[in-house]
Amino acid sequence: MQKNQIQIKVTTPSHEAFVSITDQVVEIIPQLNIKDGFIHLFVLHTTCSLTINENADPDVTNDIQNRLRQIIPWKIASDRHLEGNSAAHLKCSLIGSSLTIPIENSNLVLGTWQGIYLAEFDGSRTRKVHITAIRSN
Amino acid sequence: MQKNQIQIKVTTPSHEAFVSITDQVVEIIPQLNIKDGFIHLFVLHTTCSLTINENADPDVTNDIQNRLRQIIPWKIASDRHLEGNSAAHLKCSLIGSSLTIPIENSNLVLGTWQGIYLAEFDGSRTRKVHITAIRSN
Amino acid sequence: MQKNQIQIKVTTPSHEAFVSITDQVVEIIPQLNIKDGFIHLFVLHTTCSLTINENADPDVTNDIQNRLRQIIPWKIASDRHLEGNSAAHLKCSLIGSSLTIPIENSNLVLGTWQGIYLAEFDGSRTRKVHITAIRSN
Repeated sequence: MQKNQIQIKVTTPSHEAFVSITDQVVEIIPQLNIKDGFIHLFVLHTTCSLTINENADPDVTNDIQNRLRQIIPWKIASDRHLEGNSAAHLKCSLIGSSLTIPIENSNLVLGTWQGIYLAEFDGSRTRKVHITAIRSN
Repeated sequence: MQKNQIQIKVTTPSHEAFVSITDQVVEIIPQLNIKDGFIHLFVLHTTCSLTINENADPDVTNDIQNRLRQIIPWKIASDRHLEGNSAAHLKCSLIGSSLTIPIENSNLVLGTWQGIYLAEFDGSRTRKVHITAIRSN
Repeated sequence: MQKNQIQIKVTTPSHEAFVSITDQVVEIIPQLNIKDGFIHLFVLHTTCSLTINENADPDVTNDIQNRLRQIIPWKIASDRHLEGNSAAHLKCSLIGSSLTIPIENSNLVLGTWQGIYLAEFDGSRTRKVHITAIRSN
């Protein structure tokens, strides 16, 4: 019987980080046996996100994190949530909890510069990503 | 014949609000008869969004709304749209109009702290959410 | 054999622009032969996005762009990426690289005011949008 769903773990190295998971995702495609269709990636958490962005120059994701930190400071006067991580929760809703990426002829369809990232906003932690295969029929 | 698509209504209580719709969505799964796959939720509006965030402490979604209001004030000098709700339209594009959530063994796959919200940015109104079932095959 | 995936091209007219692609998408549905299910739209780039927003008054998408430009200026002191377009990369992660839109009885399910846009953040360029059909089964 073919597998439709797989979970992977991603350990994030610091309080904020964009961790490339492109290779981990590419390695999992054969187990899911998708010729055409797509995969759906979904984080099971509310203080990190999944996103697609530039895979070449690490300054891009560093600039993204710096800019986000300036727009959404860690602490502001109006915060009430006692855990103190409301900034991370807002970033999670802005960047989003899931990605869907097409698969054609058993390969991920990604543009030249596109990489898949888990964006950590309140680490370091081990995060779970739930992957679902959808096959065109 | 099995049903693939269902619409639900969500009445929002105030001008801005995060309304939990997790229970409404969970109740609908049996009608859609999905063993493995996912559901797709889609709002039919351009001044509200769907998002996943913390389901326990309501201060989290309150902090998110307060912070969004500070980053995206209701009125700014450059606005031209006569209806006066451009802030709500921007929030809609930032948070997004849809969610896809995996289903495994007929249950929604959600992390411990994840809840599903309709985020109202220009209420109160009655909003329509279109739900589509996709079954792994 | 039916087609599951199609790529379309979208030429953007200026450095920043919201280009309506609703008509292009509607025209492609018959080729994909989807009765019920949805289409997935995916940009193959990291400095533009796909989003759904108001289709009637063009001031809405103009206001969105003006507000985004104020929140995310083109250049800030902390930027390190030599290409100088980190603002566009951040907007890409915030608005997102993909859309999923339900199809019922061979028609796109869109609310009265919803239009589909390619949001250009670093043009003008010709952008590729990869479209995948998923049929309910």
